[in-house]
Amino acid sequence: MFERLKRVLIGPPLENEALSGQKYNVIWGLPVLSSDAISSVAYAIQEILLALVPILGLLAYHYMLWISGAIMLLLVILIFSYSQTIEKYPNGGGAFIVASDNLGHLAGITAGAALSIDYIMTVAVSISSGVQQLTSAFMFLRPYTVPIAVLLVIILMLGNLRGLRESSRIFGIPTYAFVIGVIAMIFFGFLKLRIGNIPPAPPLKTAGTFSTFLILRAFSNGCSALTGVEAVSNGIPNFRDPAVKNAKKVLLLLGFLVFITFSGIAVLTYMYHIVPGDNAVIIQLAERIFGKNFGFYYVTATTFIILIIASNTAYSDFPLLMSVMAKEGYVPRQLSMRGDRLSFSNGIVLLSVIAIILILVFDANVTALIGLYAIGVFISFTLSQTGMFKRWLAERSEHWQIKAFINGLGAVITAIVVVIVGITKFSEGAWIVVIILPILVWIMMCIKNHYDSVACQLRIEDEELNSIISKDGLYNTRIIVPIESINRASVRALRYAKSISSNVTAFNVSIDEEREQILRKRYDKLNIGIPLIVHYSPYRKIVEPLLEFIDSAEYDRKKGDIITVILPQFMVTKWWHKILHNQTRVYVEKELLKYNHIVVATMPFQLKEDKKRKYR
Amino acid sequence: MFERLKRVLIGPPLENEALSGQKYNVIWGLPVLSSDAISSVAYAIQEILLALVPILGLLAYHYMLWISGAIMLLLVILIFSYSQTIEKYPNGGGAFIVASDNLGHLAGITAGAALSIDYIMTVAVSISSGVQQLTSAFMFLRPYTVPIAVLLVIILMLGNLRGLRESSRIFGIPTYAFVIGVIAMIFFGFLKLRIGNIPPAPPLKTAGTFSTFLILRAFSNGCSALTGVEAVSNGIPNFRDPAVKNAKKVLLLLGFLVFITFSGIAVLTYMYHIVPGDNAVIIQLAERIFGKNFGFYYVTATTFIILIIASNTAYSDFPLLMSVMAKEGYVPRQLSMRGDRLSFSNGIVLLSVIAIILILVFDANVTALIGLYAIGVFISFTLSQTGMFKRWLAERSEHWQIKAFINGLGAVITAIVVVIVGITKFSEGAWIVVIILPILVWIMMCIKNHYDSVACQLRIEDEELNSIISKDGLYNTRIIVPIESINRASVRALRYAKSISSNVTAFNVSIDEEREQILRKRYDKLNIGIPLIVHYSPYRKIVEPLLEFIDSAEYDRKKGDIITVILPQFMVTKWWHKILHNQTRVYVEKELLKYNHIVVATMPFQLKEDKKRKYR
Repeated sequence: MFERLKRVLIGPPLENEALSGQKYNVIWGLPVLSSDAISSVAYAIQEILLALVPILGLLAYHYMLWISGAIMLLLVILIFSYSQTIEKYPNGGGAFIVASDNLGHLAGITAGAALSIDYIMTVAVSISSGVQQLTSAFMFLRPYTVPIAVLLVIILMLGNLRGLRESSRIFGIPTYAFVIGVIAMIFFGFLKLRIGNIPPAPPLKTAGTFSTFLILRAFSNGCSALTGVEAVSNGIPNFRDPAVKNAKKVLLLLGFLVFITFSGIAVLTYMYHIVPGDNAVIIQLAERIFGKNFGFYYVTATTFIILIIASNTAYSDFPLLMSVMAKEGYVPRQLSMRGDRLSFSNGIVLLSVIAIILILVFDANVTALIGLYAIGVFISFTLSQTGMFKRWLAERSEHWQIKAFINGLGAVITAIVVVIVGITKFSEGAWIVVIILPILVWIMMCIKNHYDSVACQLRIEDEELNSIISKDGLYNTRIIVPIESINRASVRALRYAKSISSNVTAFNVSIDEEREQILRKRYDKLNIGIPLIVHYSPYRKIVEPLLEFIDSAEYDRKKGDIITVILPQFMVTKWWHKILHNQTRVYVEKELLKYNHIVVATMPFQLKEDKKRKYR
Repeated sequence: MFERLKRVLIGPPLENEALSGQKYNVIWGLPVLSSDAISSVAYAIQEILLALVPILGLLAYHYMLWISGAIMLLLVILIFSYSQTIEKYPNGGGAFIVASDNLGHLAGITAGAALSIDYIMTVAVSISSGVQQLTSAFMFLRPYTVPIAVLLVIILMLGNLRGLRESSRIFGIPTYAFVIGVIAMIFFGFLKLRIGNIPPAPPLKTAGTFSTFLILRAFSNGCSALTGVEAVSNGIPNFRDPAVKNAKKVLLLLGFLVFITFSGIAVLTYMYHIVPGDNAVIIQLAERIFGKNFGFYYVTATTFIILIIASNTAYSDFPLLMSVMAKEGYVPRQLSMRGDRLSFSNGIVLLSVIAIILILVFDANVTALIGLYAIGVFISFTLSQTGMFKRWLAERSEHWQIKAFINGLGAVITAIVVVIVGITKFSEGAWIVVIILPILVWIMMCIKNHYDSVACQLRIEDEELNSIISKDGLYNTRIIVPIESINRASVRALRYAKSISSNVTAFNVSIDEEREQILRKRYDKLNIGIPLIVHYSPYRKIVEPLLEFIDSAEYDRKKGDIITVILPQFMVTKWWHKILHNQTRVYVEKELLKYNHIVVATMPFQLKEDKKRKYR
């Protein structure tokens, strides 16, 4: 049943060999990896204005242009530095790898943890804001905000579980549709300005004076437009060959598209003097430029959709990041395994579950969530750029000076952004990241420590291999069969025990003298030649008497003996039948497996279907 | 941790031998088994009046007296007939046993199912009504009605899990306190009437006319006073020796107490013309008789407490009924097992869980719950009395005519009550019982059928015992050790396999050629003399390739071969470490145990604690 539902939702399993066919080319890789960055165009300028307009009035537009310029400069620097990263790390140059490689484990884990937080926030924030827009348009949906948001996360999860290629198709088209709409809007916007007049500036009150903090806060808000730039360098393993070349193309195209759309909207917002209010800036722009006709509705609709799809970048990168960190042992190993459809399904499910929890806890409230957002990305930017910088210094290969300069500049500037965002948004939620990040890093170190400890205890060096068997020789094996009564399952287990060893003991835990007598009588008739030991259990315990017996002088266990306990177990045919039987075996097995000298063998006895019987 | 909490809440485990010390004598058995019946005195008359007063006005009091008389007559008949049941069924003569014994399985199950429904309802209704009274007195508690009700169920559950003797102490004292209060009130009530004058009848409007249906409805309401009479005959096994004599004493005392208090309150209510209103009839009576002083507060307080404690009869009887039915195989066997404190803990927990669910679903609303109440008890009365009647007819022992008459009369009258209650309360919820009861009976029959089927398949007749081993001889056993890599756990498993058999195969499921090469190289160095078979798994499955191999011509399994699959498994030391490892073994074991020819043996390898390491 469950299996069939799974097939319908995510499709039939794929062979290992299908992996290469599952990868992106440039056309479909671009929208998947850039939807986050491109979607932020829909709100970044508005967020800048929202910080400035209430205080500076008309002057806000002036500063907005300067801040936008600074952000675009930052974009260009990031594109250049990440382009260098891609070249140097053709197997995936996420911040985790670059930082671990050049700055040590701690920096790597920090970058990885910061990015993970950010990816999760991306899903929660972008879905919540998409739903917020949707429910502004359709008020009757407002009471269902949270269920709608959760449903959308589940849809994204299923889409991504279907595999890379299919999800890139599903989520790529809306991204292109949005970009085309915005570019058309910018084109017509400038055309209209050439033909008509520049609209008059609206009357705006000023409520305060210029301060550096104010400008920095607006800048921090605008920086959300840059999240998602790192996606491409993380995603190289998902590209078709030549992966590096394709990834670089996608990165440049991404930079170009963000640059064009962001600048275009910034300048138009300046020219048209759009005041951020009930409607988003981009929607107001569309209305002014197109009037209320097709163009307007097209931009509105694609904006809604892109905000929801934006989180798909996180769906593409988070599982990949987790799989890389899992291979190194910093997060549970299961995250490095590919599911039926060759996607890292555990990572996809994990991302969805945490995002849903966040949505439920914060009631899909964007304002409450957004404070936690963006700082993680800039921490990982800084660590990754610093790592690259150090690498060039160490390598001193051709043109190392200019390369080191680019990455160094990137590192310094993104570090400054971390400080700015950290300070200006501290009270809005950045402090939570300050608490969670070290905890996450600590947990990851514990996990790594555990995996190392396990590996160390299990490892056998090559040199030891050919002596290990001859050195210790074989085990002396003895068998115990716990029986409750004489029935087909227990007799079968006794026969099996006799088949594999001549040293077998049958063991019964008694809580009732009458039943004990019956058992002994029937056992004697069985005449199987195996001694039966009965121990009385005053507190109705099952495992303890057996363990005591094994350790008793009566049983006389020698060092190096392996005791095999054979558990007879009848197997029912229907799931609900399990409720009708004690699952004692599971408990007994769990308790016995705590001892190195005990092997637990389960001998199944398959029952047939219940016969339908007439009832008197 | 959990173990320690359990000890604090329910006390240390008790030995099997402590069972007899855990039983009731007359003094403590009476309150435990009668709290339900006695508590209904607190509301039964009120429920009669509530049905009559709005329609008949003052005339209501006249009919109330007649109805009360009828109910008391019914009580006397029931006490006599149950007294006969106790004598005939000294090991517990619950309706289930008496009906199964004399009328066949179906009647028995029906009686058992009807009683189970009623016990569960008793808990939900009496707790809800107790809390309702409490929140009437302390309005500020009103918003917490449901949590308080749930908390009370949990307290009752814990008290009962502590064991019979302790719970009889905990819950017995309030019952006596209530009875003493009510008897004192009746005494002073009559005294006051002798001294003072009979108070004037209040002006009451009539809104309708007399109808038989009306009287029958009022009678149905009053019959709730009789639930709980069957408790004593169910509970015989819980009495100290001489159990039958003690049980009969308790039954008579119970009848006497109910008769005195019920009749006394009925007559006083008539004399004082108490009008059911915001305050319960019994509370109004106390106010009139005592004035607002100690006597009033005493009656009020003990009434609140007895209503909550009333459900303790259900806690005493439901687990016992379940254990009897479980021994016969009609409900899951686990319900027949005694817990640490020798109480039937599974039954106690089951009762609590269902009652809590009912309270949550019905929002602790008494009116919504009460419709489902009482009909179950009368169905079981009828079946049990009919069974006794049939028994006397069949036995024809001394005085059989008079005995058959008593039980026959009981059967006829309770059957009439079933019809009356069913009709007059059908729309108030009795219809739910009409639906649930047959479903429950059907489920119990399915369960019985399953147990019979299992027993039949497992059973070995005594005659067969001494031939069963020699007939089939020993098994040909072959061993397969699935290995993932060469490590201490898997090498240990290979050594163990070699120790118990000369026919061993190592098996690897490969999904990656590179890892396969490494494995083969290291395996060759091991030089253990066991062939290694590697199968490639295109869909990353684990169990399927192994099962295919076992069935393949390559492995050449003969009929009668038992294949032992040894799973090497390292065991972690902390619970959270489990999250970090695939629990593949559990899944593999589950899948392999579906085959009769496969034995699954787990070879544990205990890991040590992680070393605390410095981290670079």
